[in-house]
Amino acid sequence: MALAVTATEKRTEPTASLDRLTALLEADLARVNTLILKRMQSPVALIPQLAGHIVAAGGKRLRPMLTLATSRLCGYSGERHITLAAAVEFIHTATLLHDDVVDASDLRRGLATANAVWGNKPSVLVGDFLFSRAFELMVEDGSLRILEILSRASAVIAEGEVLQLVTSNDVTTTEAAYLEVINAKTAQLFAAASRIGAVLAERSAAEEAALESYGRNLGIAFQLIDDMLDYSAHQAELGKTVGDDFRDGKITLPVVLALRAADDRERRFWCRTLERMEQREEDLPHAIELMRQHGALAATLERARDYGAAARRALASFRDGPERAALDEAIDFCLARGY
Amino acid sequence: MALAVTATEKRTEPTASLDRLTALLEADLARVNTLILKRMQSPVALIPQLAGHIVAAGGKRLRPMLTLATSRLCGYSGERHITLAAAVEFIHTATLLHDDVVDASDLRRGLATANAVWGNKPSVLVGDFLFSRAFELMVEDGSLRILEILSRASAVIAEGEVLQLVTSNDVTTTEAAYLEVINAKTAQLFAAASRIGAVLAERSAAEEAALESYGRNLGIAFQLIDDMLDYSAHQAELGKTVGDDFRDGKITLPVVLALRAADDRERRFWCRTLERMEQREEDLPHAIELMRQHGALAATLERARDYGAAARRALASFRDGPERAALDEAIDFCLARGY
Repeated sequence: MALAVTATEKRTEPTASLDRLTALLEADLARVNTLILKRMQSPVALIPQLAGHIVAAGGKRLRPMLTLATSRLCGYSGERHITLAAAVEFIHTATLLHDDVVDASDLRRGLATANAVWGNKPSVLVGDFLFSRAFELMVEDGSLRILEILSRASAVIAEGEVLQLVTSNDVTTTEAAYLEVINAKTAQLFAAASRIGAVLAERSAAEEAALESYGRNLGIAFQLIDDMLDYSAHQAELGKTVGDDFRDGKITLPVVLALRAADDRERRFWCRTLERMEQREEDLPHAIELMRQHGALAATLERARDYGAAARRALASFRDGPERAALDEAIDFCLARGY
Repeated sequence: MALAVTATEKRTEPTASLDRLTALLEADLARVNTLILKRMQSPVALIPQLAGHIVAAGGKRLRPMLTLATSRLCGYSGERHITLAAAVEFIHTATLLHDDVVDASDLRRGLATANAVWGNKPSVLVGDFLFSRAFELMVEDGSLRILEILSRASAVIAEGEVLQLVTSNDVTTTEAAYLEVINAKTAQLFAAASRIGAVLAERSAAEEAALESYGRNLGIAFQLIDDMLDYSAHQAELGKTVGDDFRDGKITLPVVLALRAADDRERRFWCRTLERMEQREEDLPHAIELMRQHGALAATLERARDYGAAARRALASFRDGPERAALDEAIDFCLARGY
């Protein structure tokens, strides 16, 4: 109760932390972390070494927290949310490992990527191991409904990652195509992780759909901010490199919007740098300058806020209390990174 | 009956084909292929393009045929074996795609690998997609027992692939460690695919174990022959390159056995070529010559025959008939490749 009051007081100003969520879920999260450490073990020592690098590097655990918090929001009082939260994190970690192969990005969470340390091969295979472990955990849980939700989510994530590859270097990519990519590669797992809470608590289809909508809109907002930050100096403070997407030739929303407003000369700049991948040192600052001129970063943030508002509306039908306040704050957290 | 008699007549001489198995399973196999083609579809066109390259390239379909044949051997008369055989093939295909990233091999099944055509990134992601599709198919089937068997198999396969990576370039690798690798990376899926037949038909634990043993021993024999063929000129006839394992620094049984018999000078040769990876054009023929001198290839074939015999014994308790004869011939097929 005391927590709920505090939540209401703070909800008006965006905070840049997940403190409320992590405080509320502290005990559950500790059990999820224990389970994750236990189930990433293998007699093949390289597996826990490499998996530990990425799993135990202290990620935010945002996705498993969604499963934990929505379960509690729905009044679930059992133990199964621990297992399923670990499965969700394993799917996410497998995706990260395979994404490292794909992106050749140099920094993630401020540490060298597993790929940079161990090479492509182990990243792919340890990703496969963690992905299999995720399914083993789900099978132990024993719900075919949840297996259906998460196996479907996994297929959609892979589709989204391939679609992202297809739109790379394609300066004709539309906002709709971009949204399709992030909806699949990011929002699908947020949506599935949130929906599971209602499934566990055996709540109505309407409540399942509401939590799915919360997760989906939150995931889209999260990725929009992520893509905006890739062109923001502020990003350096988070221990991430700026311009990864630019160097990879990814067509994210800031690029789509800058292209939409571009004159001929600017269009030639985008074609040279992102389509033909002929990049010089001064190109990234110039790209950022063009985005600022055309308000592309501000417009991206604006769209993220809209999705954040939709996520907030999806929570409205649930009882007020510490869980809802914490899930609400998670929206602020995702958006506040962009301020 | 007529088929069974023919089977008995032919069983004594090893044949180099899977004709009996494919003839027996023709109708089922056509349905599996239709399902595979249907379920590898995606609105993201690159996925069926790339998956089609490897799935539809006319692989032997050995693993799904094990599921189909063992189901029928156990008297199963339903439809579920079609779905599960497709799931088994998707798991195998995902592994192949991820293995291509790993091995950088140039040829598989006589065609350019998907990786060589499309690059590392799509191979990893389309592999993930097919792997997810495999689980979707299993979820549709709805058996938690089978989901357990195949999710466990997937984790063990990944462990085996990582262990293979760890033993690469390590000339101290023992025969036991090598067997651990192939038992996990290859035989686990053969074993799971075969076991499923007994599970579908709700046969006893003893029969499940017998079919698991059949598949496991067949899988080990299959991989032993594969590893022998990589040092055999005969391999070129199969449209595969010779010496892939050598160039990758893989420590397979022919190498382990040649190393065991090596004098100091030979040991230095193996250390230079496989540990330090300093290879010249004349090294592969010399490696093959050393293996022949020490009988390493013949000894590998001998071990494969032993595992083949164990696979045959595992079938002994099942009723004689066309299914058993066909499964028996599959052993001959695996071994005959090595003659």
